Formats: sequence, structure tokens, C-alpha cells
Amino acid sequence: MAEFPFDIQATDGAARTGVLKTARGDIRTPAFMPVGTAGTVKALSVDMVAQTGADIILGNTYHLMLRPGPERLQRLGGLHKFMGWKGPILTDSGGFQVMSLSGISKVTEEAVAFRSHIDGSKHILTPERSIEIQADRIGSDIIMQLDECVSYPAEEARAASAMRLSARWGDRSKAAFGAREHQALFGIQQGSTFEALRRESSERLIETGFDGYAIGGLAVGEGHQAMCDTLDFCAPLLPAHRPRYLMGVGKPIDLVEAVARGVDMFDCVLPTRSGRHGQAWTWEGPLALKNARFAEDETPLDATSDCPASRDYSKAYLHHLVKSEEILGQILLSWHNIAFFQALTAAMRSAIAAGQFEAFRRDFRARHGVDA
Amino acid sequence: MAEFPFDIQATDGAARTGVLKTARGDIRTPAFMPVGTAGTVKALSVDMVAQTGADIILGNTYHLMLRPGPERLQRLGGLHKFMGWKGPILTDSGGFQVMSLSGISKVTEEAVAFRSHIDGSKHILTPERSIEIQADRIGSDIIMQLDECVSYPAEEARAASAMRLSARWGDRSKAAFGAREHQALFGIQQGSTFEALRRESSERLIETGFDGYAIGGLAVGEGHQAMCDTLDFCAPLLPAHRPRYLMGVGKPIDLVEAVARGVDMFDCVLPTRSGRHGQAWTWEGPLALKNARFAEDETPLDATSDCPASRDYSKAYLHHLVKSEEILGQILLSWHNIAFFQALTAAMRSAIAAGQFEAFRRDFRARHGVDA
Repeated sequence: MAEFPFDIQATDGAARTGVLKTARGDIRTPAFMPVGTAGTVKALSVDMVAQTGADIILGNTYHLMLRPGPERLQRLGGLHKFMGWKGPILTDSGGFQVMSLSGISKVTEEAVAFRSHIDGSKHILTPERSIEIQADRIGSDIIMQLDECVSYPAEEARAASAMRLSARWGDRSKAAFGAREHQALFGIQQGSTFEALRRESSERLIETGFDGYAIGGLAVGEGHQAMCDTLDFCAPLLPAHRPRYLMGVGKPIDLVEAVARGVDMFDCVLPTRSGRHGQAWTWEGPLALKNARFAEDETPLDATSDCPASRDYSKAYLHHLVKSEEILGQILLSWHNIAFFQALTAAMRSAIAAGQFEAFRRDFRARHGVDA
Repeated sequence: MAEFPFDIQATDGAARTGVLKTARGDIRTPAFMPVGTAGTVKALSVDMVAQTGADIILGNTYHLMLRPGPERLQRLGGLHKFMGWKGPILTDSGGFQVMSLSGISKVTEEAVAFRSHIDGSKHILTPERSIEIQADRIGSDIIMQLDECVSYPAEEARAASAMRLSARWGDRSKAAFGAREHQALFGIQQGSTFEALRRESSERLIETGFDGYAIGGLAVGEGHQAMCDTLDFCAPLLPAHRPRYLMGVGKPIDLVEAVARGVDMFDCVLPTRSGRHGQAWTWEGPLALKNARFAEDETPLDATSDCPASRDYSKAYLHHLVKSEEILGQILLSWHNIAFFQALTAAMRSAIAAGQFEAFRRDFRARHGVDA
């Protein structure tokens, strides 16, 4: 395994704050990773993303393998050079999106076969090919093993077989990854909402040994409470000294509750997707800027923010841009939302370091209920 | 009339370079004004626009009067505050877009009546109301008189009556404008491609007296050569000591040829519209980034530019963004194109100051033919 020090600087209950060191820079945890689906965090330049304080972004192997294609991406110098992002990049394995976006996909012991949602072309993704694409073609810093994620709700037998296949694919991923000095490999815990399966999954992952451990199979429709209930038992099963990454999560309240249960890393399309649809996330909850009550509201989204999108434009102007379907509305709200998610993780890091995370969490819950 | 000094610093043939001084800052001429249709230069933040070196932007009265509405805009502090642009703003009168965008419009001696293309609501625009909206509600720095623009080709009698109505509306605009210290009023020459009409129009405008003089009724389908032929006689009819503004123009070659005929100011949606459709304007001509020949082209659009969009991204990446229909593609190409148009006017200013405009023009024509 690579040398990827994870320095936990403070804990407060199960919550922890620290720094995950990579060759391309430090990742302060808890960390939120903006999603750069197809080589771009949607509607934002890399400079805008960097300005929000994001230490790391996520790239989607499924999208990149279809366009521009892994071999072309490698010829162009890899994803960092291609898109101009200088910090670390984590890539998913492609498996989740193969199964959710592709029209037809078929999972066997060997691989997942699928057709492109763009042109219908046939592709096969093995654990080994996923590692090769992420590590050698894309040039990712943190590589995820290929896994099979079941939808919610799942029969226990179905969840068990997907979890065990994922564990075997984890072994194959580790073997394919081999010894790499500057890249990390994360395993993925599966098992749906079943404690015994999550336990078995963790034991298998730990036996294989990874640089970090992700929690997969959540944020697939189970809802906030079921997610929290599952995290209650599944997060502590993962090694305390390595980063824990909750995949595809989530709303601000989801992040706070997951951090309270010992999670360190997150990714989600929510801030950019919401932004493209006129929604701003704030300390007081989400705002639908299209609402007529903002038509003459001269206050900005957050006067105390360093982000120009949060600080320099009135809600009245944002309301106008959203109503007029102007691209600038999508840009500014995506930018603001990413800045808000970064401000939220920064506030959590400070609260944990100060031993005041429970007070922060209580206050956040009061203003930002689970139904927000 | 306001004190709006126009300091012509050098001439080269009919071409001139100078500075038009406004209360909100200097406008270096020849100047290209990016179009901020509905309170935003499409797909760009004001910081991005300012970074290209643009001294002034244009706002569309027609769009702003429909949304957010002139009275609301005034309550919100005017267009500068609303959109965050600190430099000067020129607004059109609304007339051209009433006649081109609105479903139904009817021109009488008194006014133009029309229905909104957004919700079908009825509106009436008089010369006086246009001045009021531009000067008092929007708070524009350079205000255009209401005029009637005929399409091309036009019967001479039709062109004459529209030109004479425009002249009478110019008088009414001047009276409504009154005495204003920090705002300028521009008249608009009409007369289609008819020299006698252009002459009569100019004489009427000069008699009325304006801070600047626009050439209207071109770039309405007559093509590059007919536009140049008309400019040959219509530009010199306007006072040499005041700025001449060719409305709605144009392609880079149009700008160069119009500057050669004594024009000082331009506006056009072309750079942003092209950018949203995958086209980049460069010193070598326009490029369609979607073309497969750019798929592995690692060169930027312009390595010598100060604009990040021109300098920091490969054509291969832009090709990928355009093919993937990513908003960032629209942002970067709009940004690059505005930066290119600013670089073009800056190059013309330097060439005129150095007495080398003819060489510049010859070279530009060779690389950037009229059919580009």
C-alpha cells in the first residue's frame, strides 16, 4: 500500500477531524468533494472550485471512459492536466453509474457488461480494467474498487451476494492495483441495511487491506433516518485510523449526522444540481430563488462568505437570473452551493477541534431539520 | 448636453483612436461593448467580463422593461447595482427589439405598441418613456434615442418615412432627456442603404445635437460588402469630433472595416452567442470546437492571452466540453470570444496610434477573409 498518512488531529464523540496527505496536497477532513462528472464540476471553472476551499474533487470513471475515453485521456496527460485541476482527484470505479445510467447492464462473477447511454456501444468493466482506467489512464490520486451496489429496499440474500461479489472484486482490485507510491486504493463496504452483512463486508475488506474505506449502498433511497440508523453500526466497523468515505451523500444535515457517526469524506452532485435548478443551500436551510418573495430582496445569500457568488449578488438579482433562465444563475448558485458545503465542512472541523461538535450539531439540526 | 469629452488621440486615414470620458470611467475607442441582454452578459460573471478589458457593456431596454421591470429595477438601485457592473453602461432604446422580438408591434407617430414575447402583456413605448426608462430607471450612462429601423432590403419611400419618424423621435428624445450632468444621449442615423436619406438623417441629427451619433439600420441582412459600401458614405456624414457607434456589429472583419471608415464603437451578441454554440473566434478565423480534428489538440486557443479561457485550456478539453454539452464549454468559449474582441479593438487602437492601421487591416483581411 502507498504511504498515505491520515493524521487525526482531534475527536469529539465519534466525530473526528484530521488531514489525509496525498502527493498532490492535503485533504482536510471532514471533507466534501465536489463532483466533476465528465471532467468538469458542472457550470464552474476549476478556479471557482478551488476558490471555495475544496481540497479534492471527484471524477466519474463511467463518464470519462465513454468520453473522451481512457486511452485518449491518457494520451492527453490524464485528468488533472486535461481539466486543469491541480489538487487531488478521487475517481469512483464506474460500477455504480454503469448500473444506474446505462440502459442495459449485466453483472457476472467476472465483470459488468453494459451499453453506453450515449451511443449504445458495448463495454465490459472488470475490477482490473477499472483500476487500470482510474490509476493509469485517468491518473487519479484515490482509486475506488469496483463493487456491486444493490438498490433499496433489498432482500437480504440479494444484498449478501452483491456484498460478497464486491469483496471478491475488492481482492482482485487490490491485486491489480499492486504497489504504487503516490496513489491510494479504497475498498467499499456493502450489505445494504443489514448489520451482519456490513460486519462481514468490513471483515473481508480489512483482511484485504486498503488505504481507506468507503461506505457504499447508502443514499439509494432509504431516507435520512434509515441512513443514520445504518451508519450507527456500519461506520464503527471500519478501521478508526483510516479515512471513512460515505459515497454519494448528501444534504447538509446528512453530512452533519454522518460526521457525528465517524465519517470523514463525502461527495454528492446535490450542490451543483440544486444550483442548476435555482436552489441555494444556506445556514438557514434551502431557498428556492424563483419564489416571488425574493424579487426585491437586496440581501446576498451570505454576506460573511468569501465566495463572490454568495457575497456580491442580491437575492433579487439571483431571482431575476433564475426566472430569466440565464446561465449566470446556474453558475452563481452552483458556486454558492459548493462554497456553502465547504463552509459547512470547515465549520465542522473547527467545532470538532474545539470540542463543541455536539453544540454545533444541535444548533444545525434546529435550523436545518431533516426534512429541509 | 452633458460634458462628455471625446479625446481623439490619433488618426490614421479615416480610422481614429481616442478616449470617451464618462462619470463611470473612460471608454477607449475603438471600443467593443459586450451585450448584457437581460442584466447579464450571457454565461459570464461581471468579473470575467471586466477581466477581458471591456470598458463598457450594453443593456437591452426591451428585456429589462419586461423583466425585472423598470420601476422594480429603479427600486433595486438601477442596473449597475443590480448586476454588479461598475463601469459605464450603454442602453439601447428598446425599439429595435420591440420590432424584432415582440410578436405584434405597431408603430404610430406617437409610439410603438407591442406585446411581450414572455407573457403577451401589452406595452407602449414612446420616445419619452424610453428616455425615462433608460436614464431614470435603469440609470444608464449612454442613452439611445428611440428610432424605427427598417429591414433590408427596403423600398426608398419606406426607408425615408422611418428615417423621418426617427428624426422626429430624436427631437422628442432630446427634449425629454433635458439637461443631465452625468449621462449622454446618442442620436441614431437611419436611411437604409440610400445615401440621400443618410445625408438628410445626419443633417437632422446634427441640427438636434447629440453627445454621440449611432449608425442604425445596418447589420440587418445586407451582408458585409453592402455594409461597407454604405459606411463609405454614411460614416463621414456624422460629426468627426463626436463618437460614432455602429449598432449591432459584428464579425471581427466587420469591425476592422468599419474602423477603417471612421467608426468608434460597436456592440454585438456574436461573441457570446457563438461561444454558446461551440465557436471560438481567433486571429486565424473562427473555429468550430466540436470538430473531431480538435479531439487531441493540446494547444490553447491563444497562449499569449491574459484570459484564462484562452490560455489555460486545451482545444481537446474544449472539444470534450462542447461534445458533452457541458455549461463550462459555453462559459469558456463566451469568455474567450469576449476577450478576443477586446484584444482585437486593443490591437486596432495600437495600430492606429502607431500609424500602421492599413498594414494591420491588410494582414487581418488576409487571415480573416470576409467570408470567415
